[in-house]
Amino acid sequence: MGPGPSATSADLENAFELGKLIADEGWVLLTGGMQSGVMDAASRGAKAAGGLVVGILSGGDRTLASEAVDIPIVTGMGSGRNNINVLSSDVVIACGMGPGTASEIALAIKGKKRVILLNDMAESRSFFKKLAPDSISIADNPIEACKLAQHMLRP
Amino acid sequence: MGPGPSATSADLENAFELGKLIADEGWVLLTGGMQSGVMDAASRGAKAAGGLVVGILSGGDRTLASEAVDIPIVTGMGSGRNNINVLSSDVVIACGMGPGTASEIALAIKGKKRVILLNDMAESRSFFKKLAPDSISIADNPIEACKLAQHMLRP
Amino acid sequence: MGPGPSATSADLENAFELGKLIADEGWVLLTGGMQSGVMDAASRGAKAAGGLVVGILSGGDRTLASEAVDIPIVTGMGSGRNNINVLSSDVVIACGMGPGTASEIALAIKGKKRVILLNDMAESRSFFKKLAPDSISIADNPIEACKLAQHMLRP
Amino acid sequence: MGPGPSATSADLENAFELGKLIADEGWVLLTGGMQSGVMDAASRGAKAAGGLVVGILSGGDRTLASEAVDIPIVTGMGSGRNNINVLSSDVVIACGMGPGTASEIALAIKGKKRVILLNDMAESRSFFKKLAPDSISIADNPIEACKLAQHMLRP
Repeated sequence: MGPGPSATSADLENAFELGKLIADEGWVLLTGGMQSGVMDAASRGAKAAGGLVVGILSGGDRTLASEAVDIPIVTGMGSGRNNINVLSSDVVIACGMGPGTASEIALAIKGKKRVILLNDMAESRSFFKKLAPDSISIADNPIEACKLAQHMLRP
Repeated sequence: MGPGPSATSADLENAFELGKLIADEGWVLLTGGMQSGVMDAASRGAKAAGGLVVGILSGGDRTLASEAVDIPIVTGMGSGRNNINVLSSDVVIACGMGPGTASEIALAIKGKKRVILLNDMAESRSFFKKLAPDSISIADNPIEACKLAQHMLRP
Repeated sequence: MGPGPSATSADLENAFELGKLIADEGWVLLTGGMQSGVMDAASRGAKAAGGLVVGILSGGDRTLASEAVDIPIVTGMGSGRNNINVLSSDVVIACGMGPGTASEIALAIKGKKRVILLNDMAESRSFFKKLAPDSISIADNPIEACKLAQHMLRP
Repeated sequence: MGPGPSATSADLENAFELGKLIADEGWVLLTGGMQSGVMDAASRGAKAAGGLVVGILSGGDRTLASEAVDIPIVTGMGSGRNNINVLSSDVVIACGMGPGTASEIALAIKGKKRVILLNDMAESRSFFKKLAPDSISIADNPIEACKLAQHMLRP
């Protein structure tokens, strides 16, 4: 999960790398599916590594979906689809920060999902750690995020 | 799309066969994903033929998902997810009939999707043909349904 | 519940009259809230009789809401909001017929709601009566629909 | 907006007071509608002052709705309804803090709504102020929150 047009270039690099690592693990990548920002970069990263990409689209058709999405799910629900994104995920990695991403982190906590924060906004770390210390882990880079996810997914 | 526990044995046979034919075409099968009725039978049919199966689940977790679903999408929206089922489909095949299925046919028409009816309830054919003559096609068996879908998907 | 721009003039007259009768009973009118067709006419009817009108809007803001709606609920979910319309209703009266209305009738049956059909499409009566004989009642005019609703709401 | 069972006693007092103030202004109170925490306390406060209370329920029926809700909207969408809560509001007041509340604040920012924070978690103020400085205002008590809302609603 991560911002669209407001993603920073560091977010985009992290997202592309994360997508690759996720595909390398043989995991399915699930994003908000749009043709911008972290969603697009992560999808392209996973695609480059031969992965399978699911995109849960906010719009009512496939317009604006990332070209790297294999399975577009069309909700027509706007940001209402954010809850579906997190409920459908085994682990939520938040790459970068913005209002939509913050809502997904909060909904993931509510849905009892494990969440990994990968961003450099100190206030976001403090807030979500305070809100749900047991649900939130912090990663400093994509490799660390992926290792945390591996650990969480271990049976 | 088709009924859950109230599916008839003919519906289940048709659904399994449809799932196989869909996978044989190289198409992705998308159903409501539950472990019962047409959703389960179609998913198992597609799986048996090596296909990829997406299930848009009504519940808030993966409980009760068909074992043959590869990509479970967890909506937690109950029948509210029916609109997502049809918006995410290229062609909607309604196999059997029930309230949920009827809602999906109607939502598909609303969403400007092509719909193929595969069931023996004369009243459903008359009604949906009257409601949307250009959106509705009738098939008498899975092979016919699949041929109609091929035709609709031709660029 | 009833069609938007495709409503017939008979639908609009019935809807206005229904809105008035509903308000006269002291009931809250709930519609899909849009500024067109049955939704608008019923809302104006209820308003004219001093009633309270709730509109569950498909759009993401209040644009296109009927002016006669007192309580606009903004879902941003398109036709996905149809399930909310019926789950929030004590009795569903379908005035006229169209794809959205048909989906609401079907979702109402699924949600175990009582449904009253007020329209002159014989095929819709046959179909829904066949689909769910115990859930569906037929009315020939707004007064009859209202009497049926009174009876259903009696404790 | 505010937490359910995890609300503190200060949250509940603030919520009751806020409900009263909102009703005194002649505004409609909209909450998540449940029979617990801030939702229930605010609804009872508004009710005590003769106000009108809308509750957007997460469940699929009216079970667990606050008794002080006049207009229950039944979504059956779980936390997916949080986006509807904020899209339907003119101003969002977050009273207390929890994962659901945090998601509503974030979705409100995303939906371009003005948000007033009324809670004593410093980390939440820092985070949301950083995330969206122009959307977030801070109140120290219900009267201040209400004054801020008055100002925001001024045409």
